[in-house]
Amino acid sequence: MRSAAVVGTGLIGTSIALALRGRGVTTYLIDTNSEAARVAADLGAGIAESPREPVDLAVIAVPPQHVAAALKAHQQLAHDFTDAASVKELVQQEAAEAGCDLTRFVGGHPMGGREQSGPLAARDDLFQGRPWVLTPSPKTRLQTIERAKTLAELCGARPVVMAHAEHDRAVALTSHTPHLVSSLLAARLLHGDPSQLGLAGQGLQDVTRLAGGSVDLWTDILGSNAVAVADVLAEFAHDAHLLVDALRALGTAREPEQRRAPLERLSAALLRGVQGRARIPVRSTGGLSLSTAYATAPSGG
Amino acid sequence: MRSAAVVGTGLIGTSIALALRGRGVTTYLIDTNSEAARVAADLGAGIAESPREPVDLAVIAVPPQHVAAALKAHQQLAHDFTDAASVKELVQQEAAEAGCDLTRFVGGHPMGGREQSGPLAARDDLFQGRPWVLTPSPKTRLQTIERAKTLAELCGARPVVMAHAEHDRAVALTSHTPHLVSSLLAARLLHGDPSQLGLAGQGLQDVTRLAGGSVDLWTDILGSNAVAVADVLAEFAHDAHLLVDALRALGTAREPEQRRAPLERLSAALLRGVQGRARIPVRSTGGLSLSTAYATAPSGG
Repeated sequence: MRSAAVVGTGLIGTSIALALRGRGVTTYLIDTNSEAARVAADLGAGIAESPREPVDLAVIAVPPQHVAAALKAHQQLAHDFTDAASVKELVQQEAAEAGCDLTRFVGGHPMGGREQSGPLAARDDLFQGRPWVLTPSPKTRLQTIERAKTLAELCGARPVVMAHAEHDRAVALTSHTPHLVSSLLAARLLHGDPSQLGLAGQGLQDVTRLAGGSVDLWTDILGSNAVAVADVLAEFAHDAHLLVDALRALGTAREPEQRRAPLERLSAALLRGVQGRARIPVRSTGGLSLSTAYATAPSGG
Repeated sequence: MRSAAVVGTGLIGTSIALALRGRGVTTYLIDTNSEAARVAADLGAGIAESPREPVDLAVIAVPPQHVAAALKAHQQLAHDFTDAASVKELVQQEAAEAGCDLTRFVGGHPMGGREQSGPLAARDDLFQGRPWVLTPSPKTRLQTIERAKTLAELCGARPVVMAHAEHDRAVALTSHTPHLVSSLLAARLLHGDPSQLGLAGQGLQDVTRLAGGSVDLWTDILGSNAVAVADVLAEFAHDAHLLVDALRALGTAREPEQRRAPLERLSAALLRGVQGRARIPVRSTGGLSLSTAYATAPSGG
């Protein structure tokens, strides 16, 4: 791949462009906000103008609800196209409805990010060692898939091919529902007074960190993957209700014998949490390695 | 304070003892597991034997359900007593029922911890800069309160006086319910297959980190603060159900007009999360400072 274009020079797009430039790919930067494209160019991410002839691959790096329109608007920009949105089924469907050439498009989702947004937060190793999901449709030509794989590899990521719905269910479980749960938990703190919140420790910081994300971006992401997130969140809420019942039973129990069954339900839920957490693969990461910090983080109690 | 005893030389007890020894207090280490006391002594936390005459203050640093029995068993060990358990109302009630001398006891809860447990995980700065809650009862004499305050200060912590129930509600909100939510979310991962879990990023690691805690200890803690945790978890589960409804509405909406109201509910929930998270006080901490690591942690998406 000799030339590329990035449409949308926020955190993700600029990070991709920085990685491509570092591997010698001529990269064009396009953003409806020309100032953002200029900032990205100043960071060394590429050239803040449109190419004179089609580039090999264009990456549409805009929020989910804007991907189809941006893809449609830039059909002459490149030979092949991919995107970087966190949801894939709705984007594919909207791209079809918008009349985009689906033979030259493969959905993509590089699995990396930071809390900050915008080009100034970009880094060329943002996707180093991370999965980069590609979701070809039956119409996608082989060359498009190959170019998107090359893109992922140039960014140091590991290409993973999945079906659209499979991807959306996977991120509902591992990313979207966790984000929403973090937000719901953080929202509970609005009901605490300062003396209560003064007891907060690192554990609360950790579990609510995702809740600090952009409201607009996450409304878009969650709204674009609504069914899959609803399914996971409904099961989660059901589990929570069962534990409320167990805790209420403990609150009214007078005899040790009455405590046994609800304590066992509580203990079983905590054990399932330990087992579920153990299923998260350990990151082989380059880029940011937080494993040492996390191994020694205080846990409160 | 010239002499102290720590009953229970796990992470918390040994960390307290290390801090006291560092400030020149003669400290005795007692544990039903004599090996744990010996390990703590080898770490320089004090003397692994019982004092010949009563020490100034004894700290009962055992899990909540064992505090009253340990306090009762060691009434001759010290002039004054405190504990270190994460729940305070039930411990006070059980101490009264066990016939302990309540004039010489003040409940205590140093707000610090680590993921690891046992004396080998102890560190003398575990409570540096952290709140240390004290919950005197109407019977507690002044000298006991003063000695417990001195203990907190010798450990570098900030003494905070609260009522038992007030403490228990505060930790239900800031620590106990977050732990349970983290466990419930991690338990959902048992329903994912490896290809789905392969997409997990740092965000999922963060939000499920608390779920890795000890099942036995947390069954004890949550079971000992059941009513306060049930209240917070019930509100949380109710909020989750409302969002399931909004997401389902988005899933079936056919017209943009039908999407507006549920998207606004989703957006409002995310905004409340941002606002709730902003209420967590920034740690002035000594000890472990993870703020830099967290400011640059990837957030997935």
